[in-house]
Amino acid sequence: MKAVAVASDGKPEVIEVAEPGPPGPGEVVVAVELAGICGTDLHVLRGDFGAAPPGTILGHEFVGCIVAVGSGVTRLLAGDRVVNSDYTACGHCRWCRRAGHWHCDERRFFGTGELFGPAQAGAQAERVLVPNAETTLSLLDPRCPPEAAILLSDNLATAWSAVERARLEPGEVVAVIGGGPVGLLSAHCALAVGAGSVVVVEPNPARRSVAASQGAVATDPDNARATVDGLTGGDGADVVIEAVGLIATLDSAVDLVRRGGRVASVGVPSAGTWTVPVAKAFSDELTLSFVVGNPISTNDRLQRMVIGGALDPTFVIDGRTTLAEAPTAYEAAMAQRHLKVVLEVGR
Amino acid sequence: MKAVAVASDGKPEVIEVAEPGPPGPGEVVVAVELAGICGTDLHVLRGDFGAAPPGTILGHEFVGCIVAVGSGVTRLLAGDRVVNSDYTACGHCRWCRRAGHWHCDERRFFGTGELFGPAQAGAQAERVLVPNAETTLSLLDPRCPPEAAILLSDNLATAWSAVERARLEPGEVVAVIGGGPVGLLSAHCALAVGAGSVVVVEPNPARRSVAASQGAVATDPDNARATVDGLTGGDGADVVIEAVGLIATLDSAVDLVRRGGRVASVGVPSAGTWTVPVAKAFSDELTLSFVVGNPISTNDRLQRMVIGGALDPTFVIDGRTTLAEAPTAYEAAMAQRHLKVVLEVGR
Amino acid sequence: MKAVAVASDGKPEVIEVAEPGPPGPGEVVVAVELAGICGTDLHVLRGDFGAAPPGTILGHEFVGCIVAVGSGVTRLLAGDRVVNSDYTACGHCRWCRRAGHWHCDERRFFGTGELFGPAQAGAQAERVLVPNAETTLSLLDPRCPPEAAILLSDNLATAWSAVERARLEPGEVVAVIGGGPVGLLSAHCALAVGAGSVVVVEPNPARRSVAASQGAVATDPDNARATVDGLTGGDGADVVIEAVGLIATLDSAVDLVRRGGRVASVGVPSAGTWTVPVAKAFSDELTLSFVVGNPISTNDRLQRMVIGGALDPTFVIDGRTTLAEAPTAYEAAMAQRHLKVVLEVGR
Amino acid sequence: MKAVAVASDGKPEVIEVAEPGPPGPGEVVVAVELAGICGTDLHVLRGDFGAAPPGTILGHEFVGCIVAVGSGVTRLLAGDRVVNSDYTACGHCRWCRRAGHWHCDERRFFGTGELFGPAQAGAQAERVLVPNAETTLSLLDPRCPPEAAILLSDNLATAWSAVERARLEPGEVVAVIGGGPVGLLSAHCALAVGAGSVVVVEPNPARRSVAASQGAVATDPDNARATVDGLTGGDGADVVIEAVGLIATLDSAVDLVRRGGRVASVGVPSAGTWTVPVAKAFSDELTLSFVVGNPISTNDRLQRMVIGGALDPTFVIDGRTTLAEAPTAYEAAMAQRHLKVVLEVGR
Repeated sequence: MKAVAVASDGKPEVIEVAEPGPPGPGEVVVAVELAGICGTDLHVLRGDFGAAPPGTILGHEFVGCIVAVGSGVTRLLAGDRVVNSDYTACGHCRWCRRAGHWHCDERRFFGTGELFGPAQAGAQAERVLVPNAETTLSLLDPRCPPEAAILLSDNLATAWSAVERARLEPGEVVAVIGGGPVGLLSAHCALAVGAGSVVVVEPNPARRSVAASQGAVATDPDNARATVDGLTGGDGADVVIEAVGLIATLDSAVDLVRRGGRVASVGVPSAGTWTVPVAKAFSDELTLSFVVGNPISTNDRLQRMVIGGALDPTFVIDGRTTLAEAPTAYEAAMAQRHLKVVLEVGR
Repeated sequence: MKAVAVASDGKPEVIEVAEPGPPGPGEVVVAVELAGICGTDLHVLRGDFGAAPPGTILGHEFVGCIVAVGSGVTRLLAGDRVVNSDYTACGHCRWCRRAGHWHCDERRFFGTGELFGPAQAGAQAERVLVPNAETTLSLLDPRCPPEAAILLSDNLATAWSAVERARLEPGEVVAVIGGGPVGLLSAHCALAVGAGSVVVVEPNPARRSVAASQGAVATDPDNARATVDGLTGGDGADVVIEAVGLIATLDSAVDLVRRGGRVASVGVPSAGTWTVPVAKAFSDELTLSFVVGNPISTNDRLQRMVIGGALDPTFVIDGRTTLAEAPTAYEAAMAQRHLKVVLEVGR
Repeated sequence: MKAVAVASDGKPEVIEVAEPGPPGPGEVVVAVELAGICGTDLHVLRGDFGAAPPGTILGHEFVGCIVAVGSGVTRLLAGDRVVNSDYTACGHCRWCRRAGHWHCDERRFFGTGELFGPAQAGAQAERVLVPNAETTLSLLDPRCPPEAAILLSDNLATAWSAVERARLEPGEVVAVIGGGPVGLLSAHCALAVGAGSVVVVEPNPARRSVAASQGAVATDPDNARATVDGLTGGDGADVVIEAVGLIATLDSAVDLVRRGGRVASVGVPSAGTWTVPVAKAFSDELTLSFVVGNPISTNDRLQRMVIGGALDPTFVIDGRTTLAEAPTAYEAAMAQRHLKVVLEVGR
Repeated sequence: MKAVAVASDGKPEVIEVAEPGPPGPGEVVVAVELAGICGTDLHVLRGDFGAAPPGTILGHEFVGCIVAVGSGVTRLLAGDRVVNSDYTACGHCRWCRRAGHWHCDERRFFGTGELFGPAQAGAQAERVLVPNAETTLSLLDPRCPPEAAILLSDNLATAWSAVERARLEPGEVVAVIGGGPVGLLSAHCALAVGAGSVVVVEPNPARRSVAASQGAVATDPDNARATVDGLTGGDGADVVIEAVGLIATLDSAVDLVRRGGRVASVGVPSAGTWTVPVAKAFSDELTLSFVVGNPISTNDRLQRMVIGGALDPTFVIDGRTTLAEAPTAYEAAMAQRHLKVVLEVGR
């Protein structure tokens, strides 16, 4: 089959590899229809958190159709249309039950080498093998369009988790730092649940335009504080969602939040440590949450919100191409010429 | 001054009466700019819950400007623009602190005779006296339009309280029974906080059109169950908001809600007792909440939501007229030719 | 094997029947160690909600050891010590995910004939077959004593669910109507999470003594209102848990609750309908919840609370006997000479 | 009158000063009955966060009786018995309403110089002046003993706020770092609301004994991780409350908490910055909350819990003396020979 893999020069290439399977106990094989390119794929290729070995099949976002089912899988059938979670989980251990599926001891993250646990071949391929499939995959409601569903596997689920962990209440003013797909979708989710005003802080004017078109107030970083002050009489934002992952943006989040406010950081951090102004954190009674997100537990709710019209996340998709053209799409993504590209694998 | 009062034949008439004042301790006098006509006014005139004595000045919704301030009032000044709560509260007793301002022992409801406690002259007048003013009145943010603010005194606050008491979660399917102002605003609030789909059940086709224009699915009562079933695969609504107050609509609410679902009844009940199908309530684990609502505690949040654009409740206002024309407006309201009429008192 | 079954005269008798098994897909067979006698068993024998056919094996509470495992069961092994939920559930359908396991379409209630769904042989027997075992059974932590665990299958879980559904907050005054096992355990749970004062209303003096020994204020029904008034300055209880199931006790619950308070009814209702004083429910803004409870979702938490010492539910067990002596134990339970009898099946 | 003030050598001394008063608008004067010595007083004397000027009257915890009432105060009367909040608040500004009274622009902290805002004379004196008295003071229920009430002004309220901000759920394992009054009371609060197990980490064996006597598992810092591991199978604590304020104890908190867990820091921080291991915070999805606490908003609830018996905070008081003996008591407190000393001012 065809797949997008890391080449020996660290760039993405389309290769021919053996199809995965047959599925073992608890596993299924999915014929991929749509696969997303995510900022995390770019991190992997750049080796930001350590390099993935050549031959690693990329991609952790997919919508597809089950073609083979392993033993012990009773709730999924061949022919079912599904969307994945970007990481696998057993669904039954104490971590899955209490702390969220991300903390599962059996977690594997698709297509990222050993960045987040044991390696698991990615989904930018014609077929993908899925361990712990009953938990890792969600059935796709026929009323939920596939191009919305592909965002449930990571970007929209992550954005939603950030809003949820920030305990946003209707009427509150939110600042989102970062206008990539997760930042823009965080703003979209915040507006969908009744945020008062949402400010998106982003240096790229094209991305600011997208934010503005969705009903957010878009501003570049130099004007962030002034914009938030203007909306809040100088008080600061009730909630700040940091969706970049730099130390500078974490600092900015603490600068933008009001006394008693909440910061949720959802960007994969670029460094191991961050110097918190703890005296200010104490006297302002801040809450700082670090969020990976949970595509498994949020899938039901987010599908219903898409179906009912409360969410339409497809606005972040600004490129669609074939699997064969993936390397060109990656180049455009690296240069921020695209916000989000989806590969139409079967095309 | 001019005021709209109950005539000896039980109909509304415009009369000339002495201005209220001077304000006593804790009281202020407000020069009314806008006053709303509410379904509760119609109940009062029809004597549905007991008749108000002739001479009762009607109206419990107003936006205006403070013109006189009694002793002990330090947080309100002459010249402040304010919106009221339809009932007064002291803000400090154990009931205000724990159970909500509605339960305050000093509660007085404007313009309804002794229906909900001791009589308090209404606001369809050039001036209105406000007891416990620091709690009963909220300052109006200059960014919040008066025609939105007038709905904060009762209808929107009541609708919001219903959604809140029903513990609506994003993505849930809501059925609202009744397409009057409170029902329509309940649907509006539910959509504003991310409801999956909202069905409005209403026999009047004109009101159904308003519901549909706001993004709800509108249906007449005969098709309510089929509509909800169609959206939920036959499961029933997660939440039902009953906004009529008839025994038949309470029964319908229990019929439309899913197993484990929640019914919030926000209509002033037309009868003293209701026969609950308790075996079904138990086996379906229902929650039934009865809601009056709280314009005082919700005012901050709702003003912010209006300012940020999450809510725009003005769509329910389909008539504006002068105080002098109030009797004609009442006639139209009685005949359901208007959804909501606002009196421009100063005009 | 030996089992306690409904005799042709409607009384309990010990019979010899074939052992269940072998287990089918998703099923296991458990060797019972402890089996509880519950008030629901008495309802079944008295035919309060319809008679169970002769030969029905009684009992829905057990602790035991898995002796045989059907296909597709991967998370339970022969030799595992487990406690059950009184009803089975698939764990995966939309009802299990959203509304609670009680609402599962595959629900079967052990040992009650067809009272709550399709018949499922009970657990007052040497062996019991468990469908949907991975969801229906919970592994028993070795630190949790079996005599506490047996209460997790129904009584304590039900009591906990009542407290949870009533949204009890620390410091609140609670009235529990009914001093049977579920009522007493509701009081115990309320005290364990910081209730201010807990009143148990119960006519039987022996049961009142048990309540008092656990730190509750015990009172007979005639003095209930005066006792609650004394503790609350006449305001009424913040929360009332109705744990009897009679119309008279539902009425009493509404009488004892304060304005803005919450009533949770956890007693299986004795009648099909209940006349709610809806005008009072509205003006007092009451919340009425009907609760069956969920031994599956609460098991983790309750085991941890028992292990840590926050809960010790064993005080309700005042009789232990053998399976052979079960008929005598039933007689004592019918006469309220026992609060709760546990059968030591293996003895 | 007599008062305990900072001497020119930085030590506490008993001085004779003019009585405060008469009270201005919104103010009252209280005749102090009990005044507490708190760890914050020791910080002030040691100049840990900057020195208080000589002559500063110490003390921010008191129970007493109102003797004079300023204009505009309508809800407090001479003769009322009250307990204070350690800081004042207006109760009406946007900060009081949304972010908590601590953030009030009019905040003054009693007896700490200008450490936390404008200076306000302290309460270790025969009389104390209280600005914004209607919000800053709470009426004392006659059923709440004064020696419990004195802890509502700071220590117990702070501990409660930590537990609340940590969003502790029943059954969870809590580690409290620090066995001073706030740490011990945090453990007490956690147990009162159903924590599974509570570990108190404290080097002082006498304080560990107090912790153990209250039902906590007491351990010295060297064995903290092993103790928590033993109780959680190596998972870590669900919640860690850091009640010391050192960088080392913040680090320890992050070490002891489980994946997906919550850290609440309630110790006044000893340094301006703290280096957070942000990669771990992200991959473990931690929540870090910084807590000052709110004696105003928690007073109602905590009084009810004391009255009902859910809380008895008096176990931390191990010294009672007169105002005249205050300097000796301070010396003992500095040397950790006392946990908490209360001054009987009227004695």
